[in-house]
Amino acid sequence: MSTASSSSDPSATLAALAGDVPLADRVRFVVELDRLKQVLRRTVVTDGIRRENTAEHSWHVAMMALVLADAADDPVDPMRVAKLLLVHDIVEIDAGDTFVYDADGQESKAERERAAAERLFGLLPRDQGDELHGCWLEFELGTTAESRFARALDRLQPLLLNHASAGQAWREHGITAAQVRAVNSTIGDGSAALWELAQHVIDDAVMRGWLPETGR
Amino acid sequence: MSTASSSSDPSATLAALAGDVPLADRVRFVVELDRLKQVLRRTVVTDGIRRENTAEHSWHVAMMALVLADAADDPVDPMRVAKLLLVHDIVEIDAGDTFVYDADGQESKAERERAAAERLFGLLPRDQGDELHGCWLEFELGTTAESRFARALDRLQPLLLNHASAGQAWREHGITAAQVRAVNSTIGDGSAALWELAQHVIDDAVMRGWLPETGR
Repeated sequence: MSTASSSSDPSATLAALAGDVPLADRVRFVVELDRLKQVLRRTVVTDGIRRENTAEHSWHVAMMALVLADAADDPVDPMRVAKLLLVHDIVEIDAGDTFVYDADGQESKAERERAAAERLFGLLPRDQGDELHGCWLEFELGTTAESRFARALDRLQPLLLNHASAGQAWREHGITAAQVRAVNSTIGDGSAALWELAQHVIDDAVMRGWLPETGR
Repeated sequence: MSTASSSSDPSATLAALAGDVPLADRVRFVVELDRLKQVLRRTVVTDGIRRENTAEHSWHVAMMALVLADAADDPVDPMRVAKLLLVHDIVEIDAGDTFVYDADGQESKAERERAAAERLFGLLPRDQGDELHGCWLEFELGTTAESRFARALDRLQPLLLNHASAGQAWREHGITAAQVRAVNSTIGDGSAALWELAQHVIDDAVMRGWLPETGR
């Protein structure tokens, strides 16, 4: 295909190699997804030497959906929960990660993510883009059993990693146990059992000196 | 839970906080999964500055299953393909990544991965461990429509990333177009359309000077 563009946008270049338009649009979206690997979260991975990125986080929570589904309060389809979690953070390719304890960032987050969803899911053929956009909205609204449970897993996962790394991200950002309890209590909207676990994890981190009860 | 172990194994420490045994076993597995983020592949992410890890690769191919499922030759359940891909590389936590062009590594790979699957899926309650172990085996054997298509996506993804990074991993390891064609022709076992795309990608990389036809 000597007609391929030599553009510096690899997603456009590869899409041009696909030939037929629906496939080209999908290839473009697939290559664009790679950029989620560059979005860094505040959480560190369990060995504590580097920050987690959003793509690997998304894999981790999707696996949690497969393994922990029967801890949901209402019956859920594990694969539907996994799908919501695979898709839920794609908007961060444009909008970046917003730290859950950053009040200012949380205010502008909705508008940034709405625009990102329009652009990113809009790369796909209409039906397919609408469907994935719908998954993102369902997760954001949390109005179904699956989305409530998906949101619980999305909160529980960084809590586990923060404990596993001796509270590194909490300490770096001066987070208190009261903040952690307030932000994560929504775990209880999806699963009483996982919220009980989360409270044990928080209490244990306080006891070990990784998370102060109040600010210094 | 002041009885929690102060072990340096974070998965055991967190499992001890879960209380009831089936949940504790699942939490242990979930925390252990984090280690897949430390397994580095030969492929680099599209900006070319670092190697991809297996956790983010697993997310990327699972998303490809959702987006590209109708390119499969035989009808497939997209979420079943995604599930196989979420699970297929978990064994690399113990067995490491084996470069697809490393003939010696490929020989010992089967035994290393078999032992890894026993240990890792064995952390889970029996029914659940058996089910995920079955997903891994299905992927390895490639005997179902879903597993053949999952294997095709698992090959196509690094091809796209290698092209997007101007052939960086190919050049670093002295790979030729003949090797790339031989290793990736199995894409055609799952999807004629994606194998056609793959050949365009390979030919284009050769034309651009990123992939020599023969070794130097």
